[in-house]
Amino acid sequence: MTVDTLPAGSTTAESPEALVARLAADGRAAQRVLARIGEAQKAEALRAAAAALRADEPAILAANAKDIAAGEAKGLSGAMLDRLRLDAERLEGIADAVEQVAALPDPVGSVIEETSRPNGLRLSRVRIPIGLIGIIYESRPNVTADAAALCLRSGNAALLRGGSEAVHSNHAIRAAFAKGLESAGIPAAAIQLVPTQDRAVVGAMLTAAGQIDMIVPRGGKSLVARVQADARVPVLAHLDGINHTYIHAAADRDVARAIAVNAKMRRTGICGAMETLLLDAQFPASGEVVAALLDAGCELRGDARARAIDSRILPADDTDWDTEYLDAIASVAVVDGLDAALDHIAAHSSGHTDAIVTADEAVAERFLTEVDSAIVMVNASSQFADGGEFGLGAEIGIATGRLHARGPVALEGLTTYKWQVRGTGQARP
Amino acid sequence: MTVDTLPAGSTTAESPEALVARLAADGRAAQRVLARIGEAQKAEALRAAAAALRADEPAILAANAKDIAAGEAKGLSGAMLDRLRLDAERLEGIADAVEQVAALPDPVGSVIEETSRPNGLRLSRVRIPIGLIGIIYESRPNVTADAAALCLRSGNAALLRGGSEAVHSNHAIRAAFAKGLESAGIPAAAIQLVPTQDRAVVGAMLTAAGQIDMIVPRGGKSLVARVQADARVPVLAHLDGINHTYIHAAADRDVARAIAVNAKMRRTGICGAMETLLLDAQFPASGEVVAALLDAGCELRGDARARAIDSRILPADDTDWDTEYLDAIASVAVVDGLDAALDHIAAHSSGHTDAIVTADEAVAERFLTEVDSAIVMVNASSQFADGGEFGLGAEIGIATGRLHARGPVALEGLTTYKWQVRGTGQARP
Repeated sequence: MTVDTLPAGSTTAESPEALVARLAADGRAAQRVLARIGEAQKAEALRAAAAALRADEPAILAANAKDIAAGEAKGLSGAMLDRLRLDAERLEGIADAVEQVAALPDPVGSVIEETSRPNGLRLSRVRIPIGLIGIIYESRPNVTADAAALCLRSGNAALLRGGSEAVHSNHAIRAAFAKGLESAGIPAAAIQLVPTQDRAVVGAMLTAAGQIDMIVPRGGKSLVARVQADARVPVLAHLDGINHTYIHAAADRDVARAIAVNAKMRRTGICGAMETLLLDAQFPASGEVVAALLDAGCELRGDARARAIDSRILPADDTDWDTEYLDAIASVAVVDGLDAALDHIAAHSSGHTDAIVTADEAVAERFLTEVDSAIVMVNASSQFADGGEFGLGAEIGIATGRLHARGPVALEGLTTYKWQVRGTGQARP
Repeated sequence: MTVDTLPAGSTTAESPEALVARLAADGRAAQRVLARIGEAQKAEALRAAAAALRADEPAILAANAKDIAAGEAKGLSGAMLDRLRLDAERLEGIADAVEQVAALPDPVGSVIEETSRPNGLRLSRVRIPIGLIGIIYESRPNVTADAAALCLRSGNAALLRGGSEAVHSNHAIRAAFAKGLESAGIPAAAIQLVPTQDRAVVGAMLTAAGQIDMIVPRGGKSLVARVQADARVPVLAHLDGINHTYIHAAADRDVARAIAVNAKMRRTGICGAMETLLLDAQFPASGEVVAALLDAGCELRGDARARAIDSRILPADDTDWDTEYLDAIASVAVVDGLDAALDHIAAHSSGHTDAIVTADEAVAERFLTEVDSAIVMVNASSQFADGGEFGLGAEIGIATGRLHARGPVALEGLTTYKWQVRGTGQARP
């Protein structure tokens, strides 16, 4: 019995741990094949998967219709149904994204550094895939294709565990990947979908250290929080994007206004959105910046000094400084100079993206050095915190952990390295 | 009350978790200072610490004498007492090692990559310290100085938790570091020693996610196993060094013999020592290699085909292929070609260091590509698996995890990076 023949949601006699162990062993065996093939073969598999996504359009849309019908019966919100829904145009977008990943440069095999030792040993640090990546996500079926494509391009096997709402869509998309893999001579187990929606399987994945090499959660804060709390496998993620924009005394007033509005209001629900505006007490145009945000429809919650700038600012309470609104709301505080801004950011930033607006280069360099976040910006909107905007191609996510990859994580973040040592018979004295 | 005034082993009303939280907060505050000072100031602190180690020789040796006396009273083995013992020469070696670390290039601030985007944003990935490193180690007092020096050079704060046998020595060495730090204007909390030997504090350190950024265990396998099993903080370590040397059919017989003997017998107790010898069935000089090992005093445990080579080879059982002997013992198996060797290594290697001896370059390149260990070697002794031999300077340890740093980990492995984005007022369209 292969995983694909299991009806979604079915149970077997296997424990969740045994199921994960079996899937992981199959995935790891397939990954050993991926690790030794060339980049052309991986790209070919991705192009074939994209073709299969297009060819399977009727089956994928029929599967998606089942998910939509079940979602409607369950009373899912309109926003959730919209995230779940596929149509011909969205499926073409998914297939196109897979082809774009196929066209990205393969990081595997690139040499990070090379040295020779006095004894003649030649050392190279060479990029290799991480191994088996577990992806735990919610109801967007496009994540199935995006994550599979990024893992495959970087030579990793993927074990996908999507939300129950999208189960039929996910199986149909995964089936198209299986066709692509097989047409390129790669075991289909390189991209597996967990065949049951049993929630205990998520727990088993999170604790499968030594079997799964890294977990990437894709979804809302409660999902990420659960993964971070329970995982024994390394996790690549960010929990919050509590991002600050500090308007320094020497900021250009037009730049300050434009960046503050863009950082909050371009898209209020993304992780790179500004959540707290810090206004320097010496900045002469705070009123303009605040008015621009309010006039753009942003609710502001401020400390007493901020509220003195504009009476439309509501009072902030202590929780506001640690809140990711993901909405047309921002907190605003007045600070006395760079050091006070740095202290506020050190106390409240989630380490995602923090920005300063200033025309003073020395101040900008101190901010870049001393703010300890994955991304620090000068005179730019925090909404640029995105793999595509960074020129990395598609991203698997944005990470705020201290180790491995940070900020927007794309293909390179899905690799690690090994040391290759080439000798001519050297024994150590 | 500062931690230094607490007598070793004393308890306070604080819970282990509260103690770790307090020490971590102090360490993190000190690390914010370290993150913004230049490399000259960190080097100055290390040179001053080395000078203080020399100046404090009477106090340090007196403290060590207390540890030795307590150890003798407790009946510690001669080997353990030797690891614990300091004398003028060993202390000079410790001070000298601190000066050598001061002379290593500071990785912090180096630019990993720089790009410009079409919209004019300039992006840099810049090395930064990881933050607060927890070091959990056994009875060697030199680890106190080595780990402190490496953390400080790379801009990290250190929270040291040494073995109870060395408690007086460790406090005396740490006091010399405090003098060095203070003379360079750096808060002494940058290098802290846990002020109690309560074992529950180790558990509190291991679970202090968000407070301690990385844990490095230094010691025997049981310590590392416990740390890996219990830690919620990322761990940099290796558990085993089950290292293979595969003598390919096309190996030079003299090179094969020299490397096999050196890989096992140069020092049998180090993690880079060979534990399993794989002899290709087509290699014509297996008898010579086996005899050289046996004649050098190595016990060999082999499969049936290996035992047919030399009657002195004892029978191996199933556990031998997964055993790190750390002694003058090796397992030996005969394999049929490269693929069988790769399969054996994939099944039994601990991912530390695996080597091939061959004159066939195509075979060597396949081995380098397909063996999935932190270090893979061709025609060299696995005993070269060492930061010094790799030209990295002193190492904090050797890591076999998949993420972050792998193989010998020196200063660069104690850093991470952030993205710096320099704009001129860009808002995202």
